[in-house]
Amino acid sequence: MAKKQSQKNWKNRLHEIIYEADTPAGKLFDVILLIAILLSIAVVMLESVNSIGENYKEALNIAEWVITILFSLEYFLRIISISKPSKYIFSFYGIIDFLSTIPKYLSLFFVGTHSLVALRALRLLRVFRILKLARFIGESQNLMKALKASRAKIFVFLFFVLILCVILGTVMYLVEDSENGFTSIPRSVYWAIVTLTTVGYGDIAPATPLGQFIASVIMILGYAIIAIPTGIVSSEMVKHSDVNLNTQACPNCGTEGHKDNADFCYHCGHNLHE
Amino acid sequence: MAKKQSQKNWKNRLHEIIYEADTPAGKLFDVILLIAILLSIAVVMLESVNSIGENYKEALNIAEWVITILFSLEYFLRIISISKPSKYIFSFYGIIDFLSTIPKYLSLFFVGTHSLVALRALRLLRVFRILKLARFIGESQNLMKALKASRAKIFVFLFFVLILCVILGTVMYLVEDSENGFTSIPRSVYWAIVTLTTVGYGDIAPATPLGQFIASVIMILGYAIIAIPTGIVSSEMVKHSDVNLNTQACPNCGTEGHKDNADFCYHCGHNLHE
Amino acid sequence: MAKKQSQKNWKNRLHEIIYEADTPAGKLFDVILLIAILLSIAVVMLESVNSIGENYKEALNIAEWVITILFSLEYFLRIISISKPSKYIFSFYGIIDFLSTIPKYLSLFFVGTHSLVALRALRLLRVFRILKLARFIGESQNLMKALKASRAKIFVFLFFVLILCVILGTVMYLVEDSENGFTSIPRSVYWAIVTLTTVGYGDIAPATPLGQFIASVIMILGYAIIAIPTGIVSSEMVKHSDVNLNTQACPNCGTEGHKDNADFCYHCGHNLHE
Amino acid sequence: MAKKQSQKNWKNRLHEIIYEADTPAGKLFDVILLIAILLSIAVVMLESVNSIGENYKEALNIAEWVITILFSLEYFLRIISISKPSKYIFSFYGIIDFLSTIPKYLSLFFVGTHSLVALRALRLLRVFRILKLARFIGESQNLMKALKASRAKIFVFLFFVLILCVILGTVMYLVEDSENGFTSIPRSVYWAIVTLTTVGYGDIAPATPLGQFIASVIMILGYAIIAIPTGIVSSEMVKHSDVNLNTQACPNCGTEGHKDNADFCYHCGHNLHE
Repeated sequence: MAKKQSQKNWKNRLHEIIYEADTPAGKLFDVILLIAILLSIAVVMLESVNSIGENYKEALNIAEWVITILFSLEYFLRIISISKPSKYIFSFYGIIDFLSTIPKYLSLFFVGTHSLVALRALRLLRVFRILKLARFIGESQNLMKALKASRAKIFVFLFFVLILCVILGTVMYLVEDSENGFTSIPRSVYWAIVTLTTVGYGDIAPATPLGQFIASVIMILGYAIIAIPTGIVSSEMVKHSDVNLNTQACPNCGTEGHKDNADFCYHCGHNLHE
Repeated sequence: MAKKQSQKNWKNRLHEIIYEADTPAGKLFDVILLIAILLSIAVVMLESVNSIGENYKEALNIAEWVITILFSLEYFLRIISISKPSKYIFSFYGIIDFLSTIPKYLSLFFVGTHSLVALRALRLLRVFRILKLARFIGESQNLMKALKASRAKIFVFLFFVLILCVILGTVMYLVEDSENGFTSIPRSVYWAIVTLTTVGYGDIAPATPLGQFIASVIMILGYAIIAIPTGIVSSEMVKHSDVNLNTQACPNCGTEGHKDNADFCYHCGHNLHE
Repeated sequence: MAKKQSQKNWKNRLHEIIYEADTPAGKLFDVILLIAILLSIAVVMLESVNSIGENYKEALNIAEWVITILFSLEYFLRIISISKPSKYIFSFYGIIDFLSTIPKYLSLFFVGTHSLVALRALRLLRVFRILKLARFIGESQNLMKALKASRAKIFVFLFFVLILCVILGTVMYLVEDSENGFTSIPRSVYWAIVTLTTVGYGDIAPATPLGQFIASVIMILGYAIIAIPTGIVSSEMVKHSDVNLNTQACPNCGTEGHKDNADFCYHCGHNLHE
Repeated sequence: MAKKQSQKNWKNRLHEIIYEADTPAGKLFDVILLIAILLSIAVVMLESVNSIGENYKEALNIAEWVITILFSLEYFLRIISISKPSKYIFSFYGIIDFLSTIPKYLSLFFVGTHSLVALRALRLLRVFRILKLARFIGESQNLMKALKASRAKIFVFLFFVLILCVILGTVMYLVEDSENGFTSIPRSVYWAIVTLTTVGYGDIAPATPLGQFIASVIMILGYAIIAIPTGIVSSEMVKHSDVNLNTQACPNCGTEGHKDNADFCYHCGHNLHE
């Protein structure tokens, strides 16, 4: 039983280090993990550059193995330090951890698993888990609230933009020659999106006067309607940053959201300073 | 008379299904229609892609006929289920329904009606009718109010931008060589719009030092004045979203600025409903 | 003396028609002038298009003469209908009217006065005079106030952006090869402005990895600092659209800017409703 | 001792002229310095233009020497007029002054010190010191406060954008052919940044239908999330610019929300200063 107790303590300590960030050991673990993740991303990136990927093939391969084994170890520790391993394994981050670690092992058995590189890029998502624990995410709490509140409106807006682009793209397909790149409606819609969002690659550009006129209208439209999502988010943020309401709860009825200068509960009339 | 009554009931039920979305049958009808519209748009798009349009000509033709007959049926049902058919036929959506259904029938009699594809794209506008009934349009109610309130200001702004572009385009036409693409004033105005809205295709770009200097000024101008429509919409949305405080004064102490759901004065605790 | 009186009346009526827009005749005059201005701009634009300018040379020349004579007549009427002609002649619009009318007459005596086309483009500025009288300029009153209030801040911001572009352009000149278009510091600064303002022509684009890295930093910077002018204008507009203050003056001390719900003057304590 | 006193006075006067801007002499010094800095930047810029740099080599060399000696003199005066020279020498501006003056002297001893041009560009930073003293920096005080308050949120946002670009860039690397420019992950990430920030050079552009579809998603995403930094700054500025109403309560009726300059309660007319 003493052994079981010590094992439990050992498990608890491990859980504290891996899943929390309040102790020095936990913080150290997070910092090391963050560096490992960034390094692993760097390795994936450098591998994809031809000149580097070929000359330093061996070194990158070794680095990749070291990182993979490190992440495997972390994955293993996360499973044994939690009381219900299945809860971690099938969680969002559990699946990401698994998918971003497995490709290197698979490359032992299968050749040409080029597309699995994508899975390794998933490691980047793990950064968010660590930052979740960090101090500065608190800053984005209000931001998140404002974004959540404006989510539906932004969605309506983007849907409207999409429909607009399909209509404008179809019009341009009919107006412009296919020689200028408007070879099909999907391509013309792609062009309309490129133009309305003010990206403007220039890989497809109108050449006829009528096409250029319509393009001008689309551009000015895009210039004006970019104000809409901005207005939505701005107004939500102004609302949420409003410091007029405090977090005090009425001692009598428990109602919250009182004005900063309130002396009495707006719901039951009870004195708030009692 | 019993027959007439049953016919009226039958008409009423049809009206409920087609024009409303409160009953399960009405909702189902809307969902099916939405899918049909999106499919029809997909067919129009795919047809325009050369490689697809030629290889799957038969399949697309059949799909187009199926959709056209479906829409014709819907058009017919809409007419018979309403008490005053003319009200529907000459309404905005009635005309769109007609124009987006007729092209396929016309193609039987006329050859080379390529440009009627545009009319088929009008089907996309029908999406708005269905969404009108949907839950999430409520979200955009405030958005619409804000946009309506800022419409006149945005119009003044766009008019100002247009005049600015004409003036700047004319200046550039005089400054730059026609070899660099500034072959006429309309083309230069087109370039000025492309630049001021920060789209920047690059199909026409200044090459002389003076031209590049003026272009820089235009860009920085465009970078600054994009703030104007954004400011307009933002301030309108802040105004419209600020509905938390009402204008009621406390009958006891006269304090104002109570929350909308307040029952008691936050200053003296007096009942506000007395 | 009766003649003098009638002459004065005649002058007054002309002044009313030309300088004001309250009478039907005055409104008609403004509408005709607006159409004439827009037509004259269209003629200048079409003339610059090679294919049109050559084929319809005669027609455009006649149209230009008609417009020029019309504007000369207007200029003459404006001078005789005002009590102090010098006040009009040396005003902003007086000079514009003169400069935009004279080029056609000069072309009779001098050949190859191509660059005087620019002066004709000044006609566009006359549009503002007419719109000044129109109803919808009232809409932009608040807009103008907000812009005036944020003018200094916007200027500081633009100055900062300019310095940033000079520094970043110099860095890019040192980093990138001149083969990729970064042939001199001014050109690199031009590129930095193109990039920071998110215009992005692509006529000059970094090709070395380091150059692309710095370009990425500039882009993200530009993406973030576009928020600054927008924030400035938004906050000013929110402030100016604040309907809390009314335009009432205190009957006792004359102080203005009272809150909408004010019963007593905040300056002297006098009852505002007396 | 009289000499020491006079020396001190002389030092004090010099300090006043160089470090302050309240006296006419101090203002004159600042204006001359500002012109000298702008001229020196112009010389550096012109030197880099091939056609100018070669033809006017001599003149530019002389101008550069004149400016360098002027700045050396200023540097020397700044050192002797301050009581603790080390405080200036190792300050931010002290180091910039040194680094931007030294390159010309070094060019006497070393050949091919091309990259030292960058150091001379540091002179531009000196502009900020002079402007610090100028009137219009007061305008940007509120701006600075708002930016400082939103710094952390903007940083979180930019970090998020960066991670998004790495993920999207990796996806594009896998989807697009390397023939279209997506030769490595870093290059694809560069493309993702170019696209998301709506710069859109067009030096790398997707050519496959799937690539163009993903690009469209990225563009619309970029179009929507530009609203976030704008919303952050806007809301902060609204908060900081709202200083018209104070938090004082009327001693008689308790009404709050008085204007800053109010002497009497707007509700009951009672003297607020009692």
